[in-house]
Amino acid sequence: MKENIITNISKLTILKLGGSVITTKDSFFTPNKKAIIRLAEEIARSDVKSLIIVHGGGSFGHPVAKQYKINKGYKDSSQIIGFSKTHQAMTTLNKLIMDSLIGQNIPAIEIQPSSCMITKSGRIQVMEQRPLTKLLRMGFVPVLYGDAVLDADTGFAILSGDQLVSTLAIQLNARHIIIGTDVDGICTADPKIDLSAKLIHHISLSELKKLQPNVGKAKVTDVTGGMFGKIIELIPAIEQKIKVIIVNAAKSNNVYKALKGEKVVGTIINKGVENGAKPN
Amino acid sequence: MKENIITNISKLTILKLGGSVITTKDSFFTPNKKAIIRLAEEIARSDVKSLIIVHGGGSFGHPVAKQYKINKGYKDSSQIIGFSKTHQAMTTLNKLIMDSLIGQNIPAIEIQPSSCMITKSGRIQVMEQRPLTKLLRMGFVPVLYGDAVLDADTGFAILSGDQLVSTLAIQLNARHIIIGTDVDGICTADPKIDLSAKLIHHISLSELKKLQPNVGKAKVTDVTGGMFGKIIELIPAIEQKIKVIIVNAAKSNNVYKALKGEKVVGTIINKGVENGAKPN
Repeated sequence: MKENIITNISKLTILKLGGSVITTKDSFFTPNKKAIIRLAEEIARSDVKSLIIVHGGGSFGHPVAKQYKINKGYKDSSQIIGFSKTHQAMTTLNKLIMDSLIGQNIPAIEIQPSSCMITKSGRIQVMEQRPLTKLLRMGFVPVLYGDAVLDADTGFAILSGDQLVSTLAIQLNARHIIIGTDVDGICTADPKIDLSAKLIHHISLSELKKLQPNVGKAKVTDVTGGMFGKIIELIPAIEQKIKVIIVNAAKSNNVYKALKGEKVVGTIINKGVENGAKPN
Repeated sequence: MKENIITNISKLTILKLGGSVITTKDSFFTPNKKAIIRLAEEIARSDVKSLIIVHGGGSFGHPVAKQYKINKGYKDSSQIIGFSKTHQAMTTLNKLIMDSLIGQNIPAIEIQPSSCMITKSGRIQVMEQRPLTKLLRMGFVPVLYGDAVLDADTGFAILSGDQLVSTLAIQLNARHIIIGTDVDGICTADPKIDLSAKLIHHISLSELKKLQPNVGKAKVTDVTGGMFGKIIELIPAIEQKIKVIIVNAAKSNNVYKALKGEKVVGTIINKGVENGAKPN
């Protein structure tokens, strides 16, 4: 293998595409094909060299997981086919995303979490990372997704895309994490119920922790938790001085701008000046 | 997790579904949907408790792999997107198979080789096996497939379904391997060119080795080799006293009968009496 194609992964970006953006959360098994194609085009246009994409399940994974109580762990054998169906729903969505990315000439390869990871009480315990790291170094764009996985304690579990984002960011020393969601960022209050809520453009980790009670929860059932759960999952990465940018991926060009490092409406979370990180 | 659902994997069967059966090899990207649905039904009806399915690529994986010379390893960056497209073709075929299996209530989960395996000069070097083994023990049916994988020496390689079958059979101590192909079994000569060719119902490994020059090659280009290549790949498993049964999976009920252990037209390969294995 020629070494000159090795990508510098020290500038790694991890992009999360929320289930609420790539699917219609209110209807079962309904992809938002327009959004998927647009996002694939934005990612291709940004031409980012070192990138991992992680996507959520939205109206694909969550309803099946809920029906079979996969997130409660193994209770009885009727859940076995439910585990297969939950994973199947995720691969149906993932296939649409992969086809769109490759259709834009992005050298994307999915990494199926259930084939190379095992959790222990819901937290990643086994993670075969060599294929993923090698793909990244060769210039591929690995794509992961929230998945039903086997669990050493509970039989099986739901491994959220957010846990994947945070774990990969820390293990691969990512430069930043871009969270593409269906809101503009973190607000001073829940904008869906409080008209005085204002978007916070920049927040430190310590400020974020104080704000926690005001962070809005997801409207529709999400077995991995809503915005609140996402932020909690990201804290260990932020502690490692990895910058997090939350943008509204449902609006055109926000993901493109965030990938290019351009000014974009959203919330930037940094560890904070008191710990030596530079405010943005 | 309740322990009573643990499947006894000491009676493991590995079923190979050849690319020539599940696709139309002469036309690109053409699944044989009728065969896929029929085979899923036969597998479900057999109700085998400990089963791994491995399928080939047929008209999906092979043409793309050939176009981008993926089996030659990494030569230049133009192959990067070709690697993604080769894998994409395999997942398109795999998705059809998974949907058919789960549609028959088989608790199938695919294991994506490129996400958990790395080859070295084309031979499996890294294989994260814990999720696969745990799936099997819990009663799932893991499904693997020939795939484009990363290679420690050559950048990337084609990992054939046949290498997967043989490796898994040895590592998991399978009871037998069923090879579902588009011919009735091994003949005394190539039946496509020699009318005097007769089906061999039972052959020992030493007899097989003597027969090698007469074993027919696949009609259409197959980057992983045809029947000859398949048999070579299986030799290490046969050496470990794992019985191999070759059947024509293009004909109804052969896979069902083989899975049930019923009498079926085909070729049985045993290590042979001289080494203590029982002739069938």
